[in-house]
Amino acid sequence: MAFMPLTDSMFLLVESREHPMHVGGLQLFRKPEGAGDDYLIKLREDLRAKTEMRSAFRRKPARPVNILGYTRWVEEAEPDMDYHFRHSALPQPGRIRELLELTSRWHSTLLDRHRPLWEIHLVEGLRDDRFAMYSKVHHALLDGVAALRQLQSTLSEDPDNRDCLPPWASPAREGERDTPAARSPLVTARETLRQLGGIPSAVTKVVNEAVRQQTLTLPMQAPKTMLNVRIGGARRFAAQSWPLDRVRTVAHAAGVSRNDVVLAMCSGALRDYLIEQRALPDAPMIAMVPVSMRKRNDSGEAIGNNIGALLCNLGTDRADAADRLKVIHKSMREGKRIFKDLTPIQALLLSGVNVAQLGLSTVPGMVTNAKPPFNLVISNVPGPRKTMYWNGAELDGIYPASVLLDGQALNITLTSNGDNLDFGITGCRRSVPHLQRILTHLDTALTELEVASGVTR
Amino acid sequence: MAFMPLTDSMFLLVESREHPMHVGGLQLFRKPEGAGDDYLIKLREDLRAKTEMRSAFRRKPARPVNILGYTRWVEEAEPDMDYHFRHSALPQPGRIRELLELTSRWHSTLLDRHRPLWEIHLVEGLRDDRFAMYSKVHHALLDGVAALRQLQSTLSEDPDNRDCLPPWASPAREGERDTPAARSPLVTARETLRQLGGIPSAVTKVVNEAVRQQTLTLPMQAPKTMLNVRIGGARRFAAQSWPLDRVRTVAHAAGVSRNDVVLAMCSGALRDYLIEQRALPDAPMIAMVPVSMRKRNDSGEAIGNNIGALLCNLGTDRADAADRLKVIHKSMREGKRIFKDLTPIQALLLSGVNVAQLGLSTVPGMVTNAKPPFNLVISNVPGPRKTMYWNGAELDGIYPASVLLDGQALNITLTSNGDNLDFGITGCRRSVPHLQRILTHLDTALTELEVASGVTR
Repeated sequence: MAFMPLTDSMFLLVESREHPMHVGGLQLFRKPEGAGDDYLIKLREDLRAKTEMRSAFRRKPARPVNILGYTRWVEEAEPDMDYHFRHSALPQPGRIRELLELTSRWHSTLLDRHRPLWEIHLVEGLRDDRFAMYSKVHHALLDGVAALRQLQSTLSEDPDNRDCLPPWASPAREGERDTPAARSPLVTARETLRQLGGIPSAVTKVVNEAVRQQTLTLPMQAPKTMLNVRIGGARRFAAQSWPLDRVRTVAHAAGVSRNDVVLAMCSGALRDYLIEQRALPDAPMIAMVPVSMRKRNDSGEAIGNNIGALLCNLGTDRADAADRLKVIHKSMREGKRIFKDLTPIQALLLSGVNVAQLGLSTVPGMVTNAKPPFNLVISNVPGPRKTMYWNGAELDGIYPASVLLDGQALNITLTSNGDNLDFGITGCRRSVPHLQRILTHLDTALTELEVASGVTR
Repeated sequence: MAFMPLTDSMFLLVESREHPMHVGGLQLFRKPEGAGDDYLIKLREDLRAKTEMRSAFRRKPARPVNILGYTRWVEEAEPDMDYHFRHSALPQPGRIRELLELTSRWHSTLLDRHRPLWEIHLVEGLRDDRFAMYSKVHHALLDGVAALRQLQSTLSEDPDNRDCLPPWASPAREGERDTPAARSPLVTARETLRQLGGIPSAVTKVVNEAVRQQTLTLPMQAPKTMLNVRIGGARRFAAQSWPLDRVRTVAHAAGVSRNDVVLAMCSGALRDYLIEQRALPDAPMIAMVPVSMRKRNDSGEAIGNNIGALLCNLGTDRADAADRLKVIHKSMREGKRIFKDLTPIQALLLSGVNVAQLGLSTVPGMVTNAKPPFNLVISNVPGPRKTMYWNGAELDGIYPASVLLDGQALNITLTSNGDNLDFGITGCRRSVPHLQRILTHLDTALTELEVASGVTR
């Protein structure tokens, strides 16, 4: 079948026990009124029967003898549905806490490369009238933004719509890459070889430029913190929603953007967390804030998925919430888009991944550098604007679980969802103890911002 | 801390995504009479508080720069109990089927090497009055027999004993290796280096002798079957108990050993399964039957754990159950103990593991050989003779889940438990479809043996 673009195979190549390369999504749903005890069993049976699958969910990597190991996708003729689509349950007492604990476990394990690279859990046992779905897709198939979109594409604004598809069956949206097979194998092979040949020098160039631009041009440098260490394979995941209105009101009162307020929430929470851990650095922490530049109608080229990035001074050295918000606002306004038009490979490299396997470990600033290029990624992904439903069940929350890399033990990704902002926090279970406390600190930080901007006293 | 004996580090070295090197055990318990709804929550809390740990359960591998990568153990100061000891639940309808499906998932994932190499799940949600415990321990810590012993050592014959320990807290039995630190690091280092130096030639010699002896001396050769292929990382696990009395009665009537009857059950089941899969070989299948030669009071030496092995002709080419039993009985009686005094390393090598990493891939007969040395391992491990209890809960079943290797996609391990024989069947999820049907075929095979030996008609 199709040769794999290098942008796909990279994510397979750099994956290890310590660095699973899948993205996850935890969705919370409210059962429709009048749902019986067997609601979930029936739902599962209905979904289980939908064995039509979009191409990305049928592909698995082949292993030809090749310089880079993985360069071809093959198609699974009969995917083992009971393996991919799993029925799971929470232990007593069935709180969100138990759900997050299970999600942490699921997000920690590697996907099986001998079959299509995804798993979806339908989760029962929440003590209220809700149920959950955890989805896990390899980054080689879909990046985080595309994976969230895929989940969203299954939803409907109509609470009476009972024909919503499961994520694997939902067709690719217009402009989404789904069929690398479209081009002739020969052309694709040539293209792949061209990329392979060009990459070391190209990457070195981009990395050098970015690093030079960052360290010479920008008036800031990320301090080394407890979050910037080599990571283990186990994860911890925490999630919570905040009303969009609270953020919007602060933004309006302070004359800043909503994303500035979100970053200030994260800044306050990180400061409190690191003080608690006796690990707050003197210098302000720097966040990498990815900006998606994917074009919806991009056609043809396999690398259609561009990511830019801002470096943001989080002002974590300041005790006052209003001060921090000002620093962030200024930094975001003035900040250059230093990593512009990054391909996923370059984004990965710049995120400090260990690229020793590609012989690039000598690239300056990349591996085990004393100072990290930034302290963490904070990503704000647009989600649905209205209340959405899935086969009659109201979507209560949608929380992204991200990829971690060496040197980046914490990731905060949030998405808008109707009237809420849904935060998903992914951490290395070894390096980031008591991760769930960051949720409390986020709430405190938002309250402080409300007080500081005069919204409440 | 202690240098790791090569017998430990081998299991870390050969481990990959496709070959997780942990052994598992699934225990079924009946709740004590009068147990309330919160029985399991309380039990979990009680056990969770027992943070005293035997040394093997605190060790994790260090990663010094070394020719073989892993040669030292370090001790985890504060193990993350919520990571190791997990509370899990079955989805509806809470049958054994759901329990086996979850066990299959748990047995498929790799242990995290950044922490001690074990996980234990306390499982609620069975629809009757039972609960389960699934334990997973890396082979580098404990082999299958030792892991089963460890589970058994937590049990009591007294239903009123409420002081039973969790598996991690139970002290090592007399003669069990638990403290490689006991010897001075220098002596251990020298010892390890000696083993490292000696191994390639020693292994080649043993392997050559064994293969020559097998192919030249023995009047049988294992056919290539669908079970003798490269495996994937996902597993399927099935388990069931049979009354020891049924096996004993057949053995007595036919004048053979109980183990002969067990092997004949497996033979009949394999034949039926392979006929169903249209994959029965013309030649009779050969089982490797390990014989534990561990000495209970063995002291001092780290390699105290010897395994011998018989090759048994299963007579799967014969349609008649009585014929198969005769072939097996004869084969076991005459069979030479061809793999005598194997170290775990040698046992592994002879099991056809891919040893390319050690540069031994040219050893004849080891890797991708056309004919496997045997078709599967069938292992019968002695268990408790009486009805056992754990904090008042009666042990209803104890089912071993084993390691699979390339070329060995199926493993049958059983253990005696009071009045029952408990079978655990571990298979590669990709290569062995409908694994659970083997349970039905085992039952049919036992019934056929009862008829054939005149016990029933």
